[in-house]
Amino acid sequence: MRLHNYFRSSASFRVRIALELKGLGYDYAPVHLVKGEQLKEPFASISPERLVPVLQDGDHTLTQSLAIIEYLEETHPEPPLLPADAAGRARVRALALDIACEIHPLNNLRVLKYLVKELGASDEAKTAWYRHWVESGLEAVERQLAAAPAAGPFCHGDRPTLADCVLVPQIFNARRFECRLDHVPTVMKVFDHCMQHPAFMAAQPSRCPDAEG
Amino acid sequence: MRLHNYFRSSASFRVRIALELKGLGYDYAPVHLVKGEQLKEPFASISPERLVPVLQDGDHTLTQSLAIIEYLEETHPEPPLLPADAAGRARVRALALDIACEIHPLNNLRVLKYLVKELGASDEAKTAWYRHWVESGLEAVERQLAAAPAAGPFCHGDRPTLADCVLVPQIFNARRFECRLDHVPTVMKVFDHCMQHPAFMAAQPSRCPDAEG
Repeated sequence: MRLHNYFRSSASFRVRIALELKGLGYDYAPVHLVKGEQLKEPFASISPERLVPVLQDGDHTLTQSLAIIEYLEETHPEPPLLPADAAGRARVRALALDIACEIHPLNNLRVLKYLVKELGASDEAKTAWYRHWVESGLEAVERQLAAAPAAGPFCHGDRPTLADCVLVPQIFNARRFECRLDHVPTVMKVFDHCMQHPAFMAAQPSRCPDAEG
Repeated sequence: MRLHNYFRSSASFRVRIALELKGLGYDYAPVHLVKGEQLKEPFASISPERLVPVLQDGDHTLTQSLAIIEYLEETHPEPPLLPADAAGRARVRALALDIACEIHPLNNLRVLKYLVKELGASDEAKTAWYRHWVESGLEAVERQLAAAPAAGPFCHGDRPTLADCVLVPQIFNARRFECRLDHVPTVMKVFDHCMQHPAFMAAQPSRCPDAEG
């Protein structure tokens, strides 16, 4: 398998965690998003969306991090990244989507660029935007986690799931942009627990071949 | 089953289509988003995210439209809304996420409000923002659909899937905001095909009990 990704892309980071959790080796193909390599050949022909990550598995070219992780779950079921029961699976997927649909898309590089270039947002306004969606979005995740007996030590019980694969990269982003995190203690407890796990450690941006300081 | 939703919410519309495709009856519980009912009791206690749709099925309270549809797929497998093969399932999920993660989150009501209130965007700038993400996002979907032999007459072959449940509401939004659609002919062919199907017709906003003109 070959993963086209970028060390700092949190969608890429999600897939790296899943691959590590499942103990699957892969070739690391870096795509430098800040240099716009996703828009140019050879990558543009590989990804119709012009987005990382892309996973190539034999003849299959897979896009969208959550779809890739579901594919890995179906093709390499052990260890499972989703619970066995339908309601548990729905809860884990909803937590993942609370981040992947409600927080992350608003803080993508291309969105921040649009704010500055088209709407004339100042650096300060851009940072406030970033923090607003992270802080309010994580508050919703906190409510989900704190309310549920299924939470802990991971997002859903005592094994890492898809939800943890999505939560951890979001916290890395939140820290990079110095977002408030003291209002989400359950989220941070789960995050700290994840970061003691070798798969999460191995997948983090600073360990990637294309990492920059 | 009880679906808490709003006629114009496209995430709600996705779930209504899935319920219709599976022939499942449900109670329709309207939540008026423009009046902010999602932030108040009694709904706030039902949804930790303060978002529609929410599906209540017996003791289970399910959130996030894509997670709800996966749950329906697992609990009511017929007719299937995902293909049988892992690569096909990944393709369908990726198409759904291309819309649910790359287009829709940017054009949510709360995001448009932030643009106006916090960034001082004019009506014109707000509309330009809306159209930019719809038009560029659908272009990526068009590339996916046009490139794949699996496309047609629906997004993936000759049966409606999760991808169609997500595509159709996005086109309704695009039309409402008078976005350009002539650059995505394959997308529109699929949309037109879907709208001849009774499930898509029955689920559309104008047929909802809380529909407004």
